[in-house]
Amino acid sequence: MWIQKQITLQAKQRGFHLVNHEIIQNIAEIKQLKMGLLHLFIQHTSASLAINENADPDVRHDMEAYFNQAIPENEPYFMHLLEGSDDMPAHIKAVVLGCELTIPVSNGQLNMGIWQGIYLCEHRNHAGCRTIIATLNGE
Amino acid sequence: MWIQKQITLQAKQRGFHLVNHEIIQNIAEIKQLKMGLLHLFIQHTSASLAINENADPDVRHDMEAYFNQAIPENEPYFMHLLEGSDDMPAHIKAVVLGCELTIPVSNGQLNMGIWQGIYLCEHRNHAGCRTIIATLNGE
Amino acid sequence: MWIQKQITLQAKQRGFHLVNHEIIQNIAEIKQLKMGLLHLFIQHTSASLAINENADPDVRHDMEAYFNQAIPENEPYFMHLLEGSDDMPAHIKAVVLGCELTIPVSNGQLNMGIWQGIYLCEHRNHAGCRTIIATLNGE
Repeated sequence: MWIQKQITLQAKQRGFHLVNHEIIQNIAEIKQLKMGLLHLFIQHTSASLAINENADPDVRHDMEAYFNQAIPENEPYFMHLLEGSDDMPAHIKAVVLGCELTIPVSNGQLNMGIWQGIYLCEHRNHAGCRTIIATLNGE
Repeated sequence: MWIQKQITLQAKQRGFHLVNHEIIQNIAEIKQLKMGLLHLFIQHTSASLAINENADPDVRHDMEAYFNQAIPENEPYFMHLLEGSDDMPAHIKAVVLGCELTIPVSNGQLNMGIWQGIYLCEHRNHAGCRTIIATLNGE
Repeated sequence: MWIQKQITLQAKQRGFHLVNHEIIQNIAEIKQLKMGLLHLFIQHTSASLAINENADPDVRHDMEAYFNQAIPENEPYFMHLLEGSDDMPAHIKAVVLGCELTIPVSNGQLNMGIWQGIYLCEHRNHAGCRTIIATLNGE
């Protein structure tokens, strides 16, 4: 069985956001799969998808703080400046964190660990909605 | 053909570890696949999976040393402190390195390069066993 | 439907290179898929695959500059030195950026965002050809 859907995530502030529910409510068909995989692909170059701690929001705060100092704005060697000082760091964060995830599906549910959640990592100061292509495959 | 298994990797020291054999001995069914993909997903937020050099152990030493200085403990802006000074850096390393891998399967075997091996990247000082969900799909 | 191919990417200079066309011209079968996934796997430990901005070449320049300073050569704690000063940083860049990508396929085409392209990230000074295993699965 193959199912493919375009999901629109509402615009979010710069930072790391838990989006499990926003994604799962758009792929109710997952309940039909006994075994398979869910692939999520964000169609943008300045936002990322990642999986990490779903409980303490301080983890998401600290990630935003860490990546802002590890991948700073206004590096003297940056040439790609036209779209604002937050743009080139956003592209770099996007390749470090990645634009896609594959998650196992078992008995109609995502088979993640109990502490794992799906993050939308928004790297721009004033981003709009973000589009995800979700592909379900299984039996 | 779909096969899904839960694999328990024995507890390991903080650092980068080759785990090809520990994984493959748990998925003997791979021999039945002429062509397909193996997906590996670690159900934890402070350990990672990666693929790199399978020969010189110095590569794994240098990776541990690099990531410890690039993602240090006790950053003054860290707020997530309750689980120990090694915990927040472990979460950051986990999103940088990633929690999942997809590897091509050809003629019953993983079709990696001759120098490639699968790493368990253990980011905690005193971790227990780690659980992997392995999903095989192919024909 | 499963299709698997070995693709040889011509040798490239150290840096970030757009390789969409070089890859797609080797998998014409993608046109037969209404819905599915393309998996790309690079069989090397010192080069990476990533997805980012396909328009302004300054983005690729700035990425090369950023990763060279974030993952420098000749760190005093590096022990893996025999293959040249560019080798150990190449291994680290390879695990940060990753060796594999999965991309949705819709109506016979890659379903990426309009600004997204596939990068070969070449981390060695004098690399040869690079081998990719492409696996197409869908209906």
